[in-house]
Amino acid sequence: MRAARLHRYDPDLAGPEFLQFDEVDEPAITEPDDVIVRVGGSGVCRTDLHIIQGVWDDGLQTDLPYTLGHENAGWVEEAGAAARSVAPGDAVVVLPGLADGTCDVCRRGLDNRCPALVWQGIQVDGGFTGFLRTKSRNLVPIPEELSPAEAAPYADAGITAYHAAKIAVRDVVPGETVAVIGIGGLGHVAIQVLKALTPARIVAIDRSKEALALAGRFGADHAVLAETDSVAEVLDLTGGAGCAAVIDFVGEGEVPAQAFSMAGAGGRYVVVGYGGTLEIPALDIMGTERQIVGAIGGTYSDLRELLALAADGRVELLTVEYPFEEVNRALGDLAAGRLRGRGVLVHT
Amino acid sequence: MRAARLHRYDPDLAGPEFLQFDEVDEPAITEPDDVIVRVGGSGVCRTDLHIIQGVWDDGLQTDLPYTLGHENAGWVEEAGAAARSVAPGDAVVVLPGLADGTCDVCRRGLDNRCPALVWQGIQVDGGFTGFLRTKSRNLVPIPEELSPAEAAPYADAGITAYHAAKIAVRDVVPGETVAVIGIGGLGHVAIQVLKALTPARIVAIDRSKEALALAGRFGADHAVLAETDSVAEVLDLTGGAGCAAVIDFVGEGEVPAQAFSMAGAGGRYVVVGYGGTLEIPALDIMGTERQIVGAIGGTYSDLRELLALAADGRVELLTVEYPFEEVNRALGDLAAGRLRGRGVLVHT
Amino acid sequence: MRAARLHRYDPDLAGPEFLQFDEVDEPAITEPDDVIVRVGGSGVCRTDLHIIQGVWDDGLQTDLPYTLGHENAGWVEEAGAAARSVAPGDAVVVLPGLADGTCDVCRRGLDNRCPALVWQGIQVDGGFTGFLRTKSRNLVPIPEELSPAEAAPYADAGITAYHAAKIAVRDVVPGETVAVIGIGGLGHVAIQVLKALTPARIVAIDRSKEALALAGRFGADHAVLAETDSVAEVLDLTGGAGCAAVIDFVGEGEVPAQAFSMAGAGGRYVVVGYGGTLEIPALDIMGTERQIVGAIGGTYSDLRELLALAADGRVELLTVEYPFEEVNRALGDLAAGRLRGRGVLVHT
Amino acid sequence: MRAARLHRYDPDLAGPEFLQFDEVDEPAITEPDDVIVRVGGSGVCRTDLHIIQGVWDDGLQTDLPYTLGHENAGWVEEAGAAARSVAPGDAVVVLPGLADGTCDVCRRGLDNRCPALVWQGIQVDGGFTGFLRTKSRNLVPIPEELSPAEAAPYADAGITAYHAAKIAVRDVVPGETVAVIGIGGLGHVAIQVLKALTPARIVAIDRSKEALALAGRFGADHAVLAETDSVAEVLDLTGGAGCAAVIDFVGEGEVPAQAFSMAGAGGRYVVVGYGGTLEIPALDIMGTERQIVGAIGGTYSDLRELLALAADGRVELLTVEYPFEEVNRALGDLAAGRLRGRGVLVHT
Repeated sequence: MRAARLHRYDPDLAGPEFLQFDEVDEPAITEPDDVIVRVGGSGVCRTDLHIIQGVWDDGLQTDLPYTLGHENAGWVEEAGAAARSVAPGDAVVVLPGLADGTCDVCRRGLDNRCPALVWQGIQVDGGFTGFLRTKSRNLVPIPEELSPAEAAPYADAGITAYHAAKIAVRDVVPGETVAVIGIGGLGHVAIQVLKALTPARIVAIDRSKEALALAGRFGADHAVLAETDSVAEVLDLTGGAGCAAVIDFVGEGEVPAQAFSMAGAGGRYVVVGYGGTLEIPALDIMGTERQIVGAIGGTYSDLRELLALAADGRVELLTVEYPFEEVNRALGDLAAGRLRGRGVLVHT
Repeated sequence: MRAARLHRYDPDLAGPEFLQFDEVDEPAITEPDDVIVRVGGSGVCRTDLHIIQGVWDDGLQTDLPYTLGHENAGWVEEAGAAARSVAPGDAVVVLPGLADGTCDVCRRGLDNRCPALVWQGIQVDGGFTGFLRTKSRNLVPIPEELSPAEAAPYADAGITAYHAAKIAVRDVVPGETVAVIGIGGLGHVAIQVLKALTPARIVAIDRSKEALALAGRFGADHAVLAETDSVAEVLDLTGGAGCAAVIDFVGEGEVPAQAFSMAGAGGRYVVVGYGGTLEIPALDIMGTERQIVGAIGGTYSDLRELLALAADGRVELLTVEYPFEEVNRALGDLAAGRLRGRGVLVHT
Repeated sequence: MRAARLHRYDPDLAGPEFLQFDEVDEPAITEPDDVIVRVGGSGVCRTDLHIIQGVWDDGLQTDLPYTLGHENAGWVEEAGAAARSVAPGDAVVVLPGLADGTCDVCRRGLDNRCPALVWQGIQVDGGFTGFLRTKSRNLVPIPEELSPAEAAPYADAGITAYHAAKIAVRDVVPGETVAVIGIGGLGHVAIQVLKALTPARIVAIDRSKEALALAGRFGADHAVLAETDSVAEVLDLTGGAGCAAVIDFVGEGEVPAQAFSMAGAGGRYVVVGYGGTLEIPALDIMGTERQIVGAIGGTYSDLRELLALAADGRVELLTVEYPFEEVNRALGDLAAGRLRGRGVLVHT
Repeated sequence: MRAARLHRYDPDLAGPEFLQFDEVDEPAITEPDDVIVRVGGSGVCRTDLHIIQGVWDDGLQTDLPYTLGHENAGWVEEAGAAARSVAPGDAVVVLPGLADGTCDVCRRGLDNRCPALVWQGIQVDGGFTGFLRTKSRNLVPIPEELSPAEAAPYADAGITAYHAAKIAVRDVVPGETVAVIGIGGLGHVAIQVLKALTPARIVAIDRSKEALALAGRFGADHAVLAETDSVAEVLDLTGGAGCAAVIDFVGEGEVPAQAFSMAGAGGRYVVVGYGGTLEIPALDIMGTERQIVGAIGGTYSDLRELLALAADGRVELLTVEYPFEEVNRALGDLAAGRLRGRGVLVHT
């Protein structure tokens, strides 16, 4: 089968051939809980660009070449002897993180925190190819309302936004305000999830007016252009009280400090974007009982819940489909900022 | 009546006369929910030294002179017409923060976050004198097992430790570990509260072997000397997993970074001590879902719960009594590090 | 001023003069936290009929005659010296239960559970008159989007539905189902509150097709006619799993047993309606970990949150206005089942 | 290998040969996540007597003969290809319920609610024999402080008591009271778990003075003889307020009504014992916001947490060892009330 693989880092994303098509062996069942999934759709993510740039090389030290693609959906082709929860032909989304399923945190349902987690498409071969070997515990059924190509980006972009939004709203009550900073691939999902999960007022913050307009269509009550006075504007919208929750999908530059400043007393600042550093006086945390909480990926249950929202039409992920063969065009469009919505590779 | 008042800042704590005895009018009921408390005991706190040094002058801008003393207990002398919950002669501890009692957060029981909070003995006249005017909603009955002099330090040192410990253990389960950094006036209470609230293993961390020995007597399972490798030692004690919760009563220098590093995935770092700054990469928060949570003072309910623990003999606050007239000796002992336990001024 | 007062019980609701107009003294401030409210609107509730029938006489033993009316809203006429949170002219809704505000549960924000609670309009004089004396802590500001006549029924019908719905959805996740039994004055609010608080699927159950149609307009996803097989139908709608939560506003006859049977494993059955008896084998509770939870009235915070929803247009309470003088016509219409929506007496 | 098997029901427990020794085949790995455990200890439980009496025959319809024994511990003899979390020689306790591990509730860690749950030793062959085939996900490592014979009863008696106690104390605060009704095999564990998890006051209620004395040794603060006035006595101990939580391990006769009556406003009545029926007016639930919550078995995480408590010496399960060959004597002693503590069969 053909696989789109990374052979060398390209720090400047010069392209145009980011990945190279190789002929590789089809994967086979080797462990009883293995499942072979025929890939129907595979999302293209900014993380793919970071990997191609070599940003994560030090941390992950993945041997090249390997196959990218961590947002996969398709149909079960073959299931191992212990993979009793799925059957050939089932339409499934693939959770990208391989957790051991046996440690303490996995057994409490927190597989996104499993210390043994290995990400397919990031640390090991992923789904930019025809077939993917994964584990039965990574498969979530796709509701009949969605195709695999539509469902694929829920595996990472969707679930990360859902998980963060769910953490954000846990103690939020009507009349309070939740802010979302960064209305991109994750943010536009978070706006919709918040709209579904809470009647709190929602403020969208972004540097792009177009992104803010999109947020408005998805249910944001207020839009704030990310400029020097965005903190003041958000505080003003809340009558000075600050937000009950702030989700930061940017995590760089001035944004972490701004996100923290937008939270009111007892408010929760959810850290999703990264790259920058939080620098906050202990007094400012203590004196207001603000909370800073990290959110990474999502759990199996998160993905099931999110797909239920999608099936009910409460959440929609904007996608742009590309034939699998045009993976480099998709990556180039993403790098150049030409992509509105999530790029998804489709096998034709 | 005589009052021990601050007339001028003393940045170096040169002393020996930190406060000056003035003759002032006895307070009178002016609002219907006012209560006059005859002071039976009044705790001496490190915050008093900070005030005397002028550290908080910029922030609080309290006019001098005024009467210090924010940890007060005694007996109700007179109660206003709307102060129906107390009667003359009642033994009471005085919550130091005057909250409005009517705002949203007060009505949810979170009076420690009231935006209108005014601290008696810090921002306005306090209890280093014979009588204190406070509000009925600030008074908690003292269980018969305790005298006012014993109960006074629960009003601030005790409640702050209790509130932080309660936040820390909320999701902790048996087999996990909680660390306490700084075994001083608050830390030694926190150790006892943790012992009462959770069967988790407790690690005490301090620079003083004497403090660690005290922590051991109060129930700490492990003692770690605060040196460069304290993080490694704590991680080692938890088999590498890190702590489910870390309470930092120091908040300065290297400690915030160490406290964060001692927390495991999903662990909660409770910020109580302040003075320093947290500087943490967003990636480290996101990637491990660690939480950073502030804790300030405590609520009315916290104080009731803590006094129930004290009445049951589960928590004991070490006190050293001084005659009221020797307030400057007490402050001097505290400044010089000669005070083991909480100093309490007693009217004789 | 004129007051509509109950002079004698009327067990059969024969009418037509349920209440009698008496000339009574205007109330005066007697305690510092008293507030005199000029009544702008006063809801007519089924509880008023029960009182008139004498159903509660044994339990409450209220001396006749007295003034009914427990859902009141209006404007502050005069405020006592300790009533600092309101000022003359403020538009306010009146929480009907006078809590002491000082006990443990009040201090945790749970004033609806205060053991000293006294209901105005039920146990003591209420608002079917020109002026009502209440306490400052019972007053919630009315958002400018609502008039007092519109806001009055939120004080009891609204808050009770909100409080129950909030308890119901606490652990509900997307894809699960919540059922509401009884789509009357409370149920139609609960449907809207659920729609605002949770993306779960909502099932409305009632004996009236008209009520079910109303539920559909307010957001219910499914309607089930309350007949012998309603349990089977609800279980069927959930694929056999049962509901994550069931709110029972009926509480009589077969309904409690049905409500419990509609709940799935771990599901929560919220008891609001009463009159009947639950008779459930311990095995059925133990074996499925179902929960049965009572909900009474609501808290001050609940009313604030609910009014925020109303101000945002998320919840609307259907009202039918009557001139104050026609209170007996309103009660007769309610008794005869001629009233669609909540009757509200308006002073003209 | 020899197995102690049930061949016919004995409704009157006439005995003396309740179970019969048969020679059966040793189990073999048939699925990749199968594990063969060499049984080291197997607890004897009142449920075994119920099964022998045929009480559960209608419900479970298990074909006779089969091997009893649902509280098993021992050493891993052989592990299937997918059983990566254990290795031969590991000392393990066996969770008795075989959950599918893939359904929604399993994936949230609530394997005790799995709709596909099958109990080994109750519905299918159990551990009153030499070797037991189970699933890798049912195995929890035994801390080195315990032998398999000591650990076995934690698999059911221990975990059920722990799970119930954990549910009971979730919102309990210092100064409140928790009652335990029935101080037998489960109750004496619950007392210890409560002592570890909460500083609340603990009341033990039983018909036997000997059981109450045991409860006192394990940390109960008060003992109440279960007689007609036990409700009044418990209410009196709480100053009339009632308990924050009541755990009922009896579930028969007058006890459910008494348990409910002992709970105060907002209190939680945890149903573990069964056999009887709850008959409670809806008004009594609604008007006090009391909660009735079922608790069945426990989760994998519960067992890990409980074993951590046992390893730390916080919980001790009283056991009486019998040679495996004397299973009928053990059952006879249990039936006759001659057994103090949990009977455990040991292979010699």
